[in-house]
Amino acid sequence: MKKIVTFGEVMMRLSVPGFGRFEQATNFDVTYAGAEANVAVSCAYFGAHALHVTVLPDNALGQAAAQSLRKVGIDISAIKFQDGRLGTYYLENGTMARGSKIVYDRVDSAFSQIEKGSFNWDEILQGADWFHWSGITPALSRGAADACLEAIEAANRLGVRVSGDIYFRSNLWQYGKKPQDVLPRLTAGCDLVLANTDNFKEIYGVDAPDFETGCLNMKKIFPTIKYFTDTTREQISASHNKISARLFDGTNTYQSAVYDLTHIVDRIGGGDAYVAGLLYGLQNNASLQTAVEFAAAATALKHGIEGDYNLVSVAEVERLMRGDASGRLKR
Amino acid sequence: MKKIVTFGEVMMRLSVPGFGRFEQATNFDVTYAGAEANVAVSCAYFGAHALHVTVLPDNALGQAAAQSLRKVGIDISAIKFQDGRLGTYYLENGTMARGSKIVYDRVDSAFSQIEKGSFNWDEILQGADWFHWSGITPALSRGAADACLEAIEAANRLGVRVSGDIYFRSNLWQYGKKPQDVLPRLTAGCDLVLANTDNFKEIYGVDAPDFETGCLNMKKIFPTIKYFTDTTREQISASHNKISARLFDGTNTYQSAVYDLTHIVDRIGGGDAYVAGLLYGLQNNASLQTAVEFAAAATALKHGIEGDYNLVSVAEVERLMRGDASGRLKR
Amino acid sequence: MKKIVTFGEVMMRLSVPGFGRFEQATNFDVTYAGAEANVAVSCAYFGAHALHVTVLPDNALGQAAAQSLRKVGIDISAIKFQDGRLGTYYLENGTMARGSKIVYDRVDSAFSQIEKGSFNWDEILQGADWFHWSGITPALSRGAADACLEAIEAANRLGVRVSGDIYFRSNLWQYGKKPQDVLPRLTAGCDLVLANTDNFKEIYGVDAPDFETGCLNMKKIFPTIKYFTDTTREQISASHNKISARLFDGTNTYQSAVYDLTHIVDRIGGGDAYVAGLLYGLQNNASLQTAVEFAAAATALKHGIEGDYNLVSVAEVERLMRGDASGRLKR
Amino acid sequence: MKKIVTFGEVMMRLSVPGFGRFEQATNFDVTYAGAEANVAVSCAYFGAHALHVTVLPDNALGQAAAQSLRKVGIDISAIKFQDGRLGTYYLENGTMARGSKIVYDRVDSAFSQIEKGSFNWDEILQGADWFHWSGITPALSRGAADACLEAIEAANRLGVRVSGDIYFRSNLWQYGKKPQDVLPRLTAGCDLVLANTDNFKEIYGVDAPDFETGCLNMKKIFPTIKYFTDTTREQISASHNKISARLFDGTNTYQSAVYDLTHIVDRIGGGDAYVAGLLYGLQNNASLQTAVEFAAAATALKHGIEGDYNLVSVAEVERLMRGDASGRLKR
Amino acid sequence: MKKIVTFGEVMMRLSVPGFGRFEQATNFDVTYAGAEANVAVSCAYFGAHALHVTVLPDNALGQAAAQSLRKVGIDISAIKFQDGRLGTYYLENGTMARGSKIVYDRVDSAFSQIEKGSFNWDEILQGADWFHWSGITPALSRGAADACLEAIEAANRLGVRVSGDIYFRSNLWQYGKKPQDVLPRLTAGCDLVLANTDNFKEIYGVDAPDFETGCLNMKKIFPTIKYFTDTTREQISASHNKISARLFDGTNTYQSAVYDLTHIVDRIGGGDAYVAGLLYGLQNNASLQTAVEFAAAATALKHGIEGDYNLVSVAEVERLMRGDASGRLKR
Amino acid sequence: MKKIVTFGEVMMRLSVPGFGRFEQATNFDVTYAGAEANVAVSCAYFGAHALHVTVLPDNALGQAAAQSLRKVGIDISAIKFQDGRLGTYYLENGTMARGSKIVYDRVDSAFSQIEKGSFNWDEILQGADWFHWSGITPALSRGAADACLEAIEAANRLGVRVSGDIYFRSNLWQYGKKPQDVLPRLTAGCDLVLANTDNFKEIYGVDAPDFETGCLNMKKIFPTIKYFTDTTREQISASHNKISARLFDGTNTYQSAVYDLTHIVDRIGGGDAYVAGLLYGLQNNASLQTAVEFAAAATALKHGIEGDYNLVSVAEVERLMRGDASGRLKR
Repeated sequence: MKKIVTFGEVMMRLSVPGFGRFEQATNFDVTYAGAEANVAVSCAYFGAHALHVTVLPDNALGQAAAQSLRKVGIDISAIKFQDGRLGTYYLENGTMARGSKIVYDRVDSAFSQIEKGSFNWDEILQGADWFHWSGITPALSRGAADACLEAIEAANRLGVRVSGDIYFRSNLWQYGKKPQDVLPRLTAGCDLVLANTDNFKEIYGVDAPDFETGCLNMKKIFPTIKYFTDTTREQISASHNKISARLFDGTNTYQSAVYDLTHIVDRIGGGDAYVAGLLYGLQNNASLQTAVEFAAAATALKHGIEGDYNLVSVAEVERLMRGDASGRLKR
Repeated sequence: MKKIVTFGEVMMRLSVPGFGRFEQATNFDVTYAGAEANVAVSCAYFGAHALHVTVLPDNALGQAAAQSLRKVGIDISAIKFQDGRLGTYYLENGTMARGSKIVYDRVDSAFSQIEKGSFNWDEILQGADWFHWSGITPALSRGAADACLEAIEAANRLGVRVSGDIYFRSNLWQYGKKPQDVLPRLTAGCDLVLANTDNFKEIYGVDAPDFETGCLNMKKIFPTIKYFTDTTREQISASHNKISARLFDGTNTYQSAVYDLTHIVDRIGGGDAYVAGLLYGLQNNASLQTAVEFAAAATALKHGIEGDYNLVSVAEVERLMRGDASGRLKR
Repeated sequence: MKKIVTFGEVMMRLSVPGFGRFEQATNFDVTYAGAEANVAVSCAYFGAHALHVTVLPDNALGQAAAQSLRKVGIDISAIKFQDGRLGTYYLENGTMARGSKIVYDRVDSAFSQIEKGSFNWDEILQGADWFHWSGITPALSRGAADACLEAIEAANRLGVRVSGDIYFRSNLWQYGKKPQDVLPRLTAGCDLVLANTDNFKEIYGVDAPDFETGCLNMKKIFPTIKYFTDTTREQISASHNKISARLFDGTNTYQSAVYDLTHIVDRIGGGDAYVAGLLYGLQNNASLQTAVEFAAAATALKHGIEGDYNLVSVAEVERLMRGDASGRLKR
Repeated sequence: MKKIVTFGEVMMRLSVPGFGRFEQATNFDVTYAGAEANVAVSCAYFGAHALHVTVLPDNALGQAAAQSLRKVGIDISAIKFQDGRLGTYYLENGTMARGSKIVYDRVDSAFSQIEKGSFNWDEILQGADWFHWSGITPALSRGAADACLEAIEAANRLGVRVSGDIYFRSNLWQYGKKPQDVLPRLTAGCDLVLANTDNFKEIYGVDAPDFETGCLNMKKIFPTIKYFTDTTREQISASHNKISARLFDGTNTYQSAVYDLTHIVDRIGGGDAYVAGLLYGLQNNASLQTAVEFAAAATALKHGIEGDYNLVSVAEVERLMRGDASGRLKR
Repeated sequence: MKKIVTFGEVMMRLSVPGFGRFEQATNFDVTYAGAEANVAVSCAYFGAHALHVTVLPDNALGQAAAQSLRKVGIDISAIKFQDGRLGTYYLENGTMARGSKIVYDRVDSAFSQIEKGSFNWDEILQGADWFHWSGITPALSRGAADACLEAIEAANRLGVRVSGDIYFRSNLWQYGKKPQDVLPRLTAGCDLVLANTDNFKEIYGVDAPDFETGCLNMKKIFPTIKYFTDTTREQISASHNKISARLFDGTNTYQSAVYDLTHIVDRIGGGDAYVAGLLYGLQNNASLQTAVEFAAAATALKHGIEGDYNLVSVAEVERLMRGDASGRLKR
Repeated sequence: MKKIVTFGEVMMRLSVPGFGRFEQATNFDVTYAGAEANVAVSCAYFGAHALHVTVLPDNALGQAAAQSLRKVGIDISAIKFQDGRLGTYYLENGTMARGSKIVYDRVDSAFSQIEKGSFNWDEILQGADWFHWSGITPALSRGAADACLEAIEAANRLGVRVSGDIYFRSNLWQYGKKPQDVLPRLTAGCDLVLANTDNFKEIYGVDAPDFETGCLNMKKIFPTIKYFTDTTREQISASHNKISARLFDGTNTYQSAVYDLTHIVDRIGGGDAYVAGLLYGLQNNASLQTAVEFAAAATALKHGIEGDYNLVSVAEVERLMRGDASGRLKR
């Protein structure tokens, strides 16, 4: 896999062991996570040179976060260490009818203090095949939104393909801008967009009776977008989901197999695992059908991995993609 | 929720982590539990002023048990600390065809040394809406049975409604009395009884072809009982049960939804969670149907919570009661 | 012990198990702590009705913090739950020449959003013997400083004695005020002050060749202060300290025994344990010498207790105070 | 159950807790295991005098392995302690589509240095009912193969019945011999053989359209074999298998019930649990049908037990064998 | 080392990890222990055939206790399994001035229900060199005292030497007898007695100005006692003790070296480790001086071992006995 | 700090938690370690570009070892992945008179299969300031010795300074060569040698009454060696050591301060921490005295760090080097 660049906040993830509730916890499992960094880690496991761009606090916790990324193969050479706090999120694992619960504590993180010009994007993006961002970053602060736009513009300028996970959580937008004001300009620079019809409507005012029509209407506004993709999750319970994905190239829809996830270990990062799988698929596989199948198998495997990072190899994804869901013992 | 008073032994629960067998354990998880205290904790989480009455040993373990109750919101002001030991129970978690296993070690506990007159029930029950007891307490010692009767009589006198969980385990009755000698007098003071047709027959000699007939026959002996209720558990395996409940008011049977519990974490305390849900439902909801639905949803959620206490909120129960069993991630 | 009221922020404490460094941590031990709450907990263990006033976030983490306090006996009836985050602090345990390390992450907590008038101090302080505050609270925000002043004024009005831990960390003061602007007015309402000659100089501009002279000079400015106290810590290493304390009543200095702390488990909260011991001593003992001895023995014991709270009883402190440092096995 | 003798390597098993991947592990769960020792442990739990013969390194790890066996009831009096290393294996638990993963590290273990004449088999087998070996042992070294042959010959001589688990993993055979060269001579001494049609073909060149024909063809070569048995595992996923077994006595096939293993905890050692169950069944039960049912129920239960050893009693197996898979709570 | 037989209760030991207080414990470390069994385990580690006689409850916990003993080499063939509970004890580890704390919960254990004639002592003691008992056993119940006397009488009859640890805790004697009524008859059968001058006076009414005089006075009453021994513990703190021992043979006192225990891990079982060392020394060494030195070194090492059992070898004890306390790394 | 290259085996380290003995362990802490890699990690923490050269098995464990190094900043670009096993070592932590115990299991590791020409040393050493090796590597196999010589010759050719830790353990040399045959040729290429007078004599036949004379005699044979250094460890107990170091430059001896290590957490890797400190000191400091002081302070700090790696910063070492051993709390 070729070079991929991702940009976004990295947080400390503090999760209650087992199925305990927050008030039962006497200790938390500690990992590090972030939607875009999760994509990078998965790409690194697929063989990419994955460079993640972020700002971390200039203290022992920021260093620990950077070490966590470096361990799993991320190029951390572009990470900046500045004053500020490390964003955190707290996770309680759900089961059956009780859903998992996340409490975010990311306000005023070092990352949110990014400013225009913080990074030399031309240098960072040198030789990259894809640049990936998500809708979380522009939601965090004006500076983060500015930096994200700079990155997309640089990518466009350098011929680096751009993928955007149009992740929309209205309660994140606290700095005075609305997603409708900011996201369209960022979306305009994308080659691939992960979004659903709700996003089309809420953010871009694009209404449509179905996904394909929505995509075609989006394409009228954002003609550079080549691929639209989304995943479908049927939630039988917190322990049991069915997941599938589709990819629309403006003409055809490529629908993946449906995966029956009967004993979910950790679903956080499932969407990021999908994006990484898709980027890999679009780089390496013959057909769009194969790409979406690879990506869907990747996200399926993520649900059995602890932590946000999808620590699986290409061989493991391909085994599942080829239909072997037997979980046979490997000696 | 209004004031509720419960009365019963509190034990230390020592459970093997994961699915280990007793002989594999090199450490035990420690919590505290008791059928009636479990009801109180759940009511406290539903917003009640929940006062639990018990006797604990006057040592560091008794203090730890009391702290455990106080932590989750129980009013411990009526707890007495006396000489004696803390009852314990050991738990091995089952899975699939291997059932969970409990070894009780509660003989001669400080609680069992209760005597008539130990508690000032008139003061304790002041302002209470319900008093709850279970069939375990009168099984432990003559004094415990006496105190339980005193409490029920005081409740009757003060207009506090009484609920009894006619929990019948013959091997508990070691002090010379038989359940048939003791339970009827206690039952006579109840407004609500959790029991099934087996209990009707074994304890009260009331035989009947079905639950409703049994209840009506019981009502002839115990005319003050307004509500009869029981739960039905279909045991596919130790990991997978289906549970439902019904409530009979002398005229109609209100049958709850059936909950499919596919990944059971901890089923101990499920019945107590049901009772708490029912008391909440009878206080707060418009209809008996809603009450039994709330209670059934509460016990369903308990199966996903570690420990005996059902640490869930009214909002969580209502979400499930309304049919949302999807376990969706909450951010 | 009589009623005591404390006021201050409660944080989540995340500590690396054993002697691991932050980057080695795969899990954190979770407890809750705060300088003033620590005092309250210790007083509760000494038998006081200890009421702690604070603001916690209105989420599951805030509830968990409140449960932690309630468990160990704190009256949490005056705690407010509001929007905002829970302050946290990260702890790495040092040993030998490597000191323990704390990373604070408390900026913009729910507590710091307190405003004047947030609490009904007259009601809260009703029947109290002491009100305790520390120099941390006015450092956090203007509103917190205002509320602290309100509390002290109410205490003065109601005849409640006031103790202040003039804890001075310059890097806390981020909201535009300097400690020199704010602390004197709060100090003016105190009966007891924990401070050393450095504090006298830095905050109040009071220079003196020794502690007693410093106290007398302080008394000229703050005539209501009856007691000055400080502790002396000789740091042989992170694992081995010697600690002692003195109390000056304007006339005499009462010097405690020196405690040799040879195997330190956790020194965080040592100062708070001292304050609690002193408040107990001033309430319950015949002489000032006994009071300072009790307080010094209390802080000595704290160094062997995990977490911020000094979970020791009066009997345990008195045993040490009487000279029995043998750590004999108690059966 | 009567005396049973087993012979084979004992390894340290190092498994990642929960569902972590190898690179996520900061600690490993440590148990001890070996195909033949697993059989012995299960037999000991069924009441046998189970004597396991092996060679362990003469160091603290070898002693720990021996203690592990002695704890669960194995007669370790014939174990030799010699120079060399303890074989180990590393286990990563799979879930859903991701299979469990084993990394063996058993090369050049103390066990593989066994030589002809290492053990006094006539003494060891004195009074035994069965001798059990597996195809792993002769794969490890020439000396191990020699010793295995000595044991089988001694058993034949003494009238001790012999069971062989024709476990064939080609990558184990590193010492210059092929399984086809070695296994036939060992098989010739067997009364019972666990093997499937693939084994028949690969090892013995016996081709057949179905199991029974294969067995009959095998019987032509190895006329002393009375029983052929194998298990069938349908792998829905790593978390969910269906398992059943059959036993062929040269005339009839006895087919067990199919067990639906919906929440697998640990499948390692499942085959060994089956063998132990079968040996018990053949000793203790009236019919071959009962024997195979007991064995299948035993292996079903193993999937819910942590570690390689099947720590279940006859009563537990019989409960399941009689059709009670309800996993009811036992108090 | 030759055969040794010990007799006494085995309990489950539940200890708080680290230095937590009982109310902080969310899990307990589980081991098994008993004064006399501890002696047996240590003797087994010194190479003895160590047979421990006890009664355990006939349930999973009793089996787990027996497995714990068998693991470390104890001959459990004489253990009886009967109705009743398993005695337990709870341990909180002290540090510095805070002593460790034990809460016993052993009343009405299966062991205490022993009756005269429960054991066939002639068979059990066959071939033994020593029989060891402690003053705990006769304190537990009349039947236990009776059985202890039977054992001592059988030992005397068979020429098996008897050692008694005159462990005197007045609060244990709950069944109506006083130690003064029971212990002398047991003591009369001893060859070796571990006791101090306080014991001489309290139990036997033997007053003396020093240890040797006390022993000589004891010898007048109990002429068969050849050896008197006791240990001296100087308690600097719970973390730091100095320990030494002496042995008096009626003529000379053999004083051991003093061991400086600067970082105590676990002092429970220290006295039992001493007894085991002494029995080993008396069997195996040339001189009484060497015997007491070996025993003192053994108890010194125990303070660095987790749990009650002194899991150290003869070589390890001898290294320390020879003066090498350097704790050098062994590769 | 400039580029440093190290060469040597990396093992998995499996250590018993706390102070448990091997047979008590139910889990092992897992880290990765190797004498030369430990040096590299420490240098990376001091700011060096630290490149470690090794061979790891081409499996999940080898990848985990590499990730462990990458996490803490090691350049792993020259690591080769080949068939073979991962060397392991087992560690039991000692305390007081009981020393720590290591069981090595490194025979036939992937590393030992290195052959001459395995690495392109000219490329690897490009731009390096130091190359570091230890006496372990040439002891493991002929190929490892050959590769080590290649590396030293390349370093000499390229002007890269060479440091050798003449670590002599006779039991490592199993492949047919003696240290006396191999080490001199490697030593001949060194600028700095860590060795003591015992090493001088055993390996090189250089006898001398004191360290300085020994060094001078060595210099006659190996004229390129500029610096000789060794450390002195006084072992009061396993928990308490005193450590110091000296550096001889052919003319003067520079003696470091003596560090009193009173509460040792983990002494493994102490020598490697010293080497790293010395390399840093020789690169960065004005005087040889400062260099040896920095190195001694570094090794002192190591004794308080869990695992083999000395995860401390230059600032932390300098604080101690300047005499601040107070272990003051850092907020």
